[in-house]
Amino acid sequence: MSRQATRGDPRKVNGELFTLTYGALVAQLLRDYEDDEEVNKQLEKMGYNIGVRLIEDFLARSNTGRCNDFRETADIISKTAFKMYLGITPVVSNWSAAGDEFSLLMENNPLIDFVELPDGHNSLNYSNIFCGVLKGALEMVQMEVDVKFVQDQLKGDSVTELRLKFIKRLEDAVPVGED
Amino acid sequence: MSRQATRGDPRKVNGELFTLTYGALVAQLLRDYEDDEEVNKQLEKMGYNIGVRLIEDFLARSNTGRCNDFRETADIISKTAFKMYLGITPVVSNWSAAGDEFSLLMENNPLIDFVELPDGHNSLNYSNIFCGVLKGALEMVQMEVDVKFVQDQLKGDSVTELRLKFIKRLEDAVPVGED
Repeated sequence: MSRQATRGDPRKVNGELFTLTYGALVAQLLRDYEDDEEVNKQLEKMGYNIGVRLIEDFLARSNTGRCNDFRETADIISKTAFKMYLGITPVVSNWSAAGDEFSLLMENNPLIDFVELPDGHNSLNYSNIFCGVLKGALEMVQMEVDVKFVQDQLKGDSVTELRLKFIKRLEDAVPVGED
Repeated sequence: MSRQATRGDPRKVNGELFTLTYGALVAQLLRDYEDDEEVNKQLEKMGYNIGVRLIEDFLARSNTGRCNDFRETADIISKTAFKMYLGITPVVSNWSAAGDEFSLLMENNPLIDFVELPDGHNSLNYSNIFCGVLKGALEMVQMEVDVKFVQDQLKGDSVTELRLKFIKRLEDAVPVGED
Protein backbone atom coordinates (compact mmCIF):
# COMPACT_ATOMS: atom_id res chain seq x y z
CA MET A 1 0.00 0.00 0.00
CA SER A 2 2.09 2.84 1.25
CA ARG A 3 5.39 2.99 -0.52
CA GLN A 4 7.01 5.18 2.06
CA ALA A 5 7.33 4.84 5.78
CA THR A 6 4.22 6.01 7.56
CA ARG A 7 5.88 5.93 10.94
CA GLY A 8 8.39 8.33 12.36
CA ASP A 9 8.38 12.00 11.63
CA PRO A 10 5.37 12.93 9.58
CA ARG A 11 6.10 14.68 6.30
CA LYS A 12 4.90 18.27 6.23
CA VAL A 13 3.51 20.14 3.29
CA ASN A 14 3.03 23.84 2.84
CA GLY A 15 -0.46 24.89 3.87
CA GLU A 16 -0.92 27.21 0.94
CA LEU A 17 -0.31 24.43 -1.57
CA PHE A 18 -2.80 22.26 0.29
CA THR A 19 -5.41 24.98 0.33
CA LEU A 20 -5.05 25.64 -3.40
CA THR A 21 -5.22 21.94 -4.19
CA TYR A 22 -8.39 21.58 -2.14
CA GLY A 23 -9.77 24.60 -3.99
CA ALA A 24 -9.11 22.88 -7.31
CA LEU A 25 -11.05 19.88 -6.04
CA VAL A 26 -14.08 21.93 -5.00
CA ALA A 27 -13.99 23.88 -8.27
CA GLN A 28 -14.00 20.63 -10.21
CA LEU A 29 -17.01 19.36 -8.25
CA LEU A 30 -18.83 22.64 -8.90
CA ARG A 31 -18.26 22.07 -12.61
CA ASP A 32 -19.46 18.47 -12.34
CA TYR A 33 -22.62 18.93 -10.33
CA GLU A 34 -25.19 21.62 -10.79
CA ASP A 35 -26.44 21.45 -7.29
CA ASP A 36 -24.63 22.73 -4.19
CA GLU A 37 -26.23 20.02 -2.09
CA GLU A 38 -24.79 17.39 -4.39
CA VAL A 39 -21.34 18.97 -4.11
CA ASN A 40 -21.70 18.95 -0.31
CA LYS A 41 -22.57 15.27 -0.51
CA GLN A 42 -19.59 14.47 -2.71
CA LEU A 43 -17.21 16.40 -0.45
CA GLU A 44 -18.51 14.51 2.56
CA LYS A 45 -18.09 11.21 0.74
CA MET A 46 -14.51 12.05 -0.22
CA GLY A 47 -13.82 13.15 3.32
CA TYR A 48 -15.26 9.90 4.64
CA ASN A 49 -12.86 7.91 2.49
CA ILE A 50 -9.96 10.05 3.64
CA GLY A 51 -10.97 9.73 7.31
CA VAL A 52 -11.20 5.97 7.06
CA ARG A 53 -7.58 5.87 5.85
CA LEU A 54 -6.18 8.64 7.99
CA ILE A 55 -7.29 7.15 11.31
CA GLU A 56 -4.75 4.36 11.10
CA ASP A 57 -1.96 6.87 10.65
CA PHE A 58 -3.40 8.94 13.46
CA LEU A 59 -3.57 6.09 15.95
CA ALA A 60 -0.05 4.99 15.10
CA ARG A 61 1.42 8.46 15.50
CA SER A 62 -0.58 9.85 18.36
CA ASN A 63 -0.46 6.90 20.69
CA THR A 64 -4.09 7.52 21.53
CA GLY A 65 -5.99 4.83 23.33
CA ARG A 66 -9.72 4.28 23.54
CA CYS A 67 -11.59 7.33 24.81
CA ASN A 68 -13.54 7.03 28.04
CA ASP A 69 -16.23 9.44 27.00
CA PHE A 70 -17.27 11.87 24.30
CA ARG A 71 -15.60 14.76 26.09
CA GLU A 72 -12.28 13.02 25.82
CA THR A 73 -12.99 12.36 22.15
CA ALA A 74 -13.67 16.05 21.62
CA ASP A 75 -10.38 17.01 23.24
CA ILE A 76 -8.38 14.56 21.19
CA ILE A 77 -10.01 15.67 17.94
CA SER A 78 -9.22 19.28 18.68
CA LYS A 79 -5.89 19.21 20.45
CA THR A 80 -4.30 16.20 18.84
CA ALA A 81 -5.89 15.46 15.47
CA PHE A 82 -6.54 18.96 14.12
CA LYS A 83 -3.22 20.10 15.52
CA MET A 84 -1.36 17.21 13.92
CA TYR A 85 -2.97 17.42 10.51
CA LEU A 86 -3.77 21.08 10.02
CA GLY A 87 -1.74 22.87 12.64
CA ILE A 88 -4.77 24.43 14.31
CA THR A 89 -6.64 23.71 17.52
CA PRO A 90 -10.38 24.37 17.22
CA VAL A 91 -12.19 25.43 20.37
CA VAL A 92 -14.47 22.76 21.82
CA SER A 93 -17.68 24.47 22.84
CA ASN A 94 -21.47 24.49 23.15
CA TRP A 95 -21.87 21.14 24.87
CA SER A 96 -25.39 19.79 25.03
CA ALA A 97 -26.73 19.12 28.54
CA ALA A 98 -26.60 15.40 27.89
CA GLY A 99 -22.94 15.61 26.86
CA ASP A 100 -23.62 13.98 23.51
CA GLU A 101 -23.13 17.03 21.29
CA PHE A 102 -20.47 19.69 20.94
CA SER A 103 -19.15 22.21 18.48
CA LEU A 104 -15.68 22.70 17.05
CA LEU A 105 -15.08 26.40 16.47
CA MET A 106 -12.34 27.51 14.09
CA GLU A 107 -11.28 31.08 13.65
CA ASN A 108 -8.68 30.18 11.06
CA ASN A 109 -10.12 27.49 8.87
CA PRO A 110 -7.10 26.63 6.74
CA LEU A 111 -9.24 25.44 3.84
CA ILE A 112 -10.61 28.89 3.11
CA ASP A 113 -7.49 30.99 2.71
CA PHE A 114 -7.80 32.87 -0.61
CA VAL A 115 -11.35 31.61 -1.06
CA GLU A 116 -14.40 33.60 -1.95
CA LEU A 117 -17.62 31.78 -2.74
CA PRO A 118 -18.77 32.48 -6.26
CA ASP A 119 -22.22 34.06 -6.56
CA GLY A 120 -25.18 31.74 -6.44
CA HIS A 121 -23.64 29.11 -4.20
CA ASN A 122 -25.27 29.96 -0.92
CA SER A 123 -25.94 26.33 -0.12
CA LEU A 124 -22.39 25.20 -0.70
CA ASN A 125 -20.55 24.03 2.39
CA TYR A 126 -17.14 24.65 0.92
CA SER A 127 -15.29 22.90 3.74
CA ASN A 128 -17.72 20.01 3.98
CA ILE A 129 -14.89 17.54 3.59
CA PHE A 130 -14.29 18.05 7.36
CA CYS A 131 -17.63 16.42 8.14
CA GLY A 132 -16.74 13.36 6.12
CA VAL A 133 -13.22 13.03 7.51
CA LEU A 134 -14.47 13.17 11.11
CA LYS A 135 -17.33 10.77 10.41
CA GLY A 136 -15.11 8.27 8.61
CA ALA A 137 -12.31 8.39 11.16
CA LEU A 138 -14.63 8.06 14.14
CA GLU A 139 -16.51 5.18 12.57
CA MET A 140 -13.24 3.27 12.42
CA VAL A 141 -12.93 3.61 16.18
CA GLN A 142 -16.47 2.34 16.63
CA MET A 143 -18.25 5.62 17.04
CA GLU A 144 -21.17 6.62 14.89
CA VAL A 145 -21.21 10.39 14.94
CA ASP A 146 -23.29 12.87 13.01
CA VAL A 147 -21.25 15.85 11.80
CA LYS A 148 -22.83 19.01 10.45
CA PHE A 149 -21.74 22.39 9.21
CA VAL A 150 -23.33 25.08 11.35
CA GLN A 151 -21.40 28.29 10.69
CA ASP A 152 -19.20 29.20 7.79
CA GLN A 153 -16.88 32.21 7.54
CA LEU A 154 -17.30 32.10 3.78
CA LYS A 155 -20.91 33.04 4.37
CA GLY A 156 -20.12 35.89 6.72
CA ASP A 157 -20.17 34.03 10.02
CA SER A 158 -17.43 35.06 12.41
CA VAL A 159 -16.22 31.49 12.91
CA THR A 160 -16.42 28.14 11.21
CA GLU A 161 -18.52 25.81 13.36
CA LEU A 162 -18.82 22.07 13.03
CA ARG A 163 -21.35 20.28 15.22
CA LEU A 164 -20.71 16.70 16.29
CA LYS A 165 -23.47 14.55 17.73
CA PHE A 166 -22.77 11.14 19.19
CA ILE A 167 -25.23 8.59 17.81
CA LYS A 168 -24.06 5.24 19.10
CA ARG A 169 -21.15 3.00 19.79
CA LEU A 170 -20.68 0.50 16.98
CA GLU A 171 -19.94 -3.14 17.58
CA ASP A 172 -16.31 -4.02 17.15
CA ALA A 173 -15.97 -5.92 13.94
CA VAL A 174 -13.27 -8.38 14.88
CA PRO A 175 -11.78 -10.20 11.90
CA VAL A 176 -11.90 -13.97 12.18
CA GLY A 177 -8.78 -15.34 13.80
CA GLU A 178 -7.91 -12.13 15.58
CA ASP A 179 -8.58 -11.26 19.14
CA MET B 1 -7.91 37.91 -1.31
CA SER B 2 -6.19 36.01 1.41
CA ARG B 3 -7.96 36.32 4.69
CA GLN B 4 -4.98 35.22 6.73
CA ALA B 5 -1.45 36.47 6.82
CA THR B 6 0.60 35.05 3.99
CA ARG B 7 3.85 36.38 5.39
CA GLY B 8 5.77 35.07 8.33
CA ASP B 9 5.93 31.44 9.25
CA PRO B 10 4.17 29.34 6.67
CA ARG B 11 1.42 27.09 7.91
CA LYS B 12 2.24 23.41 7.62
CA VAL B 13 -0.13 20.61 6.86
CA ASN B 14 0.34 16.89 7.31
CA GLY B 15 1.66 15.31 4.12
CA GLU B 16 -0.62 12.31 4.36
CA LEU B 17 -3.72 14.49 4.40
CA PHE B 18 -2.41 16.37 1.38
CA THR B 19 -1.68 13.17 -0.51
CA LEU B 20 -5.14 11.75 0.17
CA THR B 21 -6.79 15.01 -0.86
CA TYR B 22 -4.83 15.06 -4.10
CA GLY B 23 -5.87 11.44 -4.63
CA ALA B 24 -9.52 12.42 -4.27
CA LEU B 25 -8.99 15.08 -6.93
CA VAL B 26 -7.43 12.65 -9.42
CA ALA B 27 -10.13 10.05 -8.72
CA GLN B 28 -12.79 12.65 -9.43
CA LEU B 29 -11.17 13.57 -12.74
CA LEU B 30 -10.97 9.90 -13.69
CA ARG B 31 -14.70 9.66 -13.10
CA ASP B 32 -15.30 12.81 -15.14
CA TYR B 33 -13.19 12.10 -18.19
CA GLU B 34 -12.94 8.84 -20.03
CA ASP B 35 -9.54 9.54 -21.42
CA ASP B 36 -6.25 9.52 -19.50
CA GLU B 37 -4.84 12.19 -21.78
CA GLU B 38 -7.74 14.44 -20.92
CA VAL B 39 -7.16 13.88 -17.20
CA ASN B 40 -3.47 14.74 -17.71
CA LYS B 41 -4.54 17.93 -19.43
CA GLN B 42 -6.92 18.88 -16.65
CA LEU B 43 -4.31 18.19 -13.98
CA GLU B 44 -1.82 20.36 -15.82
CA LYS B 45 -4.40 23.13 -16.12
CA MET B 46 -5.20 22.98 -12.40
CA GLY B 47 -1.51 22.97 -11.62
CA TYR B 48 -1.00 25.99 -13.85
CA ASN B 49 -3.62 27.94 -11.92
CA ILE B 50 -2.02 26.90 -8.64
CA GLY B 51 1.47 27.84 -9.85
CA VAL B 52 0.31 31.27 -10.95
CA ARG B 53 -0.93 31.95 -7.43
CA LEU B 54 1.79 30.19 -5.49
CA ILE B 55 4.67 32.12 -7.07
CA GLU B 56 3.73 35.31 -5.27
CA ASP B 57 3.86 33.52 -1.95
CA PHE B 58 7.11 31.89 -2.97
CA LEU B 59 8.84 35.14 -3.93
CA ALA B 60 7.69 36.80 -0.72
CA ARG B 61 8.89 34.00 1.50
CA SER B 62 12.04 32.90 -0.23
CA ASN B 63 13.57 36.29 -0.94
CA THR B 64 14.61 35.02 -4.32
CA GLY B 65 15.73 37.54 -6.92
CA ARG B 66 15.87 37.18 -10.67
CA CYS B 67 17.88 34.15 -11.81
CA ASN B 68 20.98 34.74 -13.91
CA ASP B 69 20.59 31.57 -15.89
CA PHE B 70 18.58 28.38 -16.19
CA ARG B 71 21.00 26.51 -13.94
CA GLU B 72 20.25 28.89 -11.14
CA THR B 73 16.55 28.47 -11.82
CA ALA B 74 16.94 24.70 -11.59
CA ASP B 75 18.68 24.98 -8.23
CA ILE B 76 16.08 27.27 -6.79
CA ILE B 77 13.22 25.05 -7.96
CA SER B 78 14.80 22.03 -6.37
CA LYS B 79 16.45 23.33 -3.22
CA THR B 80 14.12 26.16 -2.33
CA ALA B 81 10.70 25.65 -3.91
CA PHE B 82 10.24 21.88 -3.64
CA LYS B 83 11.84 21.96 -0.21
CA MET B 84 9.55 24.74 0.97
CA TYR B 85 6.30 23.34 -0.40
CA LEU B 86 6.74 19.58 -0.26
CA GLY B 87 9.69 19.01 2.03
CA ILE B 88 11.73 17.22 -0.63
CA THR B 89 14.72 18.21 -2.75
CA PRO B 90 14.65 16.62 -6.19
CA VAL B 91 17.99 15.93 -7.83
CA VAL B 92 18.77 18.25 -10.75
CA SER B 93 20.25 16.10 -13.48
CA ASN B 94 20.62 15.23 -17.17
CA TRP B 95 21.47 18.70 -18.44
CA SER B 96 21.36 19.15 -22.19
CA ALA B 97 24.61 20.30 -23.79
CA ALA B 98 23.08 23.68 -24.53
CA GLY B 99 22.07 24.11 -20.90
CA ASP B 100 18.44 24.67 -21.81
CA GLU B 101 17.02 21.38 -20.50
CA PHE B 102 17.30 19.46 -17.27
CA SER B 103 15.49 16.81 -15.25
CA LEU B 104 14.16 16.86 -11.72
CA LEU B 105 14.50 13.39 -10.22
CA MET B 106 12.41 12.44 -7.19
CA GLU B 107 12.84 9.23 -5.28
CA ASN B 108 10.05 10.07 -2.89
CA ASN B 109 7.30 11.73 -4.84
CA PRO B 110 4.97 12.75 -2.01
CA LEU B 111 1.90 12.65 -4.24
CA ILE B 112 2.06 8.91 -4.72
CA ASP B 113 2.14 7.58 -1.17
CA PHE B 114 -0.60 4.92 -0.90
CA VAL B 115 -1.31 5.15 -4.60
CA GLU B 116 -1.64 2.32 -7.07
CA LEU B 117 -2.80 3.07 -10.57
CA PRO B 118 -6.01 1.27 -11.37
CA ASP B 119 -5.84 -1.10 -14.34
CA GLY B 120 -6.22 0.38 -17.77
CA HIS B 121 -4.73 3.76 -16.98
CA ASN B 122 -1.31 3.37 -18.51
CA SER B 123 -1.40 6.80 -20.07
CA LEU B 124 -2.32 8.59 -16.87
CA ASN B 125 0.37 10.88 -15.49
CA TYR B 126 -0.97 10.79 -11.98
CA SER B 127 1.31 13.55 -10.72
CA ASN B 128 0.87 15.75 -13.79
CA ILE B 129 -0.14 18.66 -11.62
CA PHE B 130 3.61 19.23 -11.08
CA CYS B 131 4.03 20.14 -14.75
CA GLY B 132 1.32 22.74 -14.53
CA VAL B 133 2.52 24.25 -11.25
CA LEU B 134 6.05 24.68 -12.59
CA LYS B 135 4.85 26.06 -15.91
CA GLY B 136 2.46 28.53 -14.28
CA ALA B 137 4.90 29.71 -11.64
CA LEU B 138 7.77 30.16 -14.10
CA GLU B 139 5.57 32.03 -16.53
CA MET B 140 4.90 34.58 -13.82
CA VAL B 141 8.62 35.26 -13.61
CA GLN B 142 8.81 35.70 -17.37
CA MET B 143 10.04 32.27 -18.33
CA GLU B 144 8.24 30.11 -20.81
CA VAL B 145 9.20 26.57 -19.96
CA ASP B 146 7.97 23.26 -21.30
CA VAL B 147 7.50 20.66 -18.55
CA LYS B 148 6.99 16.98 -19.26
CA PHE B 149 6.58 13.79 -17.33
CA VAL B 150 9.33 11.39 -18.32
CA GLN B 151 9.48 8.68 -15.66
CA ASP B 152 6.83 7.65 -13.16
CA GLN B 153 7.28 5.35 -10.19
CA LEU B 154 3.62 4.44 -10.47
CA LYS B 155 4.49 2.79 -13.76
CA GLY B 156 7.43 0.88 -12.43
CA ASP B 157 10.18 3.42 -13.05
CA SER B 158 12.71 3.71 -10.23
CA VAL B 159 12.31 7.47 -9.96
CA THR B 160 9.84 10.16 -10.87
CA GLU B 161 11.40 12.36 -13.56
CA LEU B 162 10.17 15.72 -14.75
CA ARG B 163 11.90 17.31 -17.73
CA LEU B 164 12.05 21.09 -18.02
CA LYS B 165 12.97 22.79 -21.27
CA PHE B 166 13.55 26.52 -21.48
CA ILE B 167 11.62 27.97 -24.42
CA LYS B 168 12.02 31.72 -24.13
CA ARG B 169 12.10 34.71 -21.89
CA LEU B 170 8.77 36.50 -21.89
CA GLU B 171 8.42 40.23 -22.05
CA ASP B 172 7.77 41.82 -18.70
CA ALA B 173 4.21 42.95 -18.62
CA VAL B 174 4.55 46.08 -16.55
CA PRO B 175 1.26 47.47 -15.33
CA VAL B 176 0.71 51.10 -16.26
CA GLY B 177 2.00 53.40 -13.57
CA GLU B 178 4.44 50.91 -12.11
CA ASP B 179 8.10 50.70 -12.70
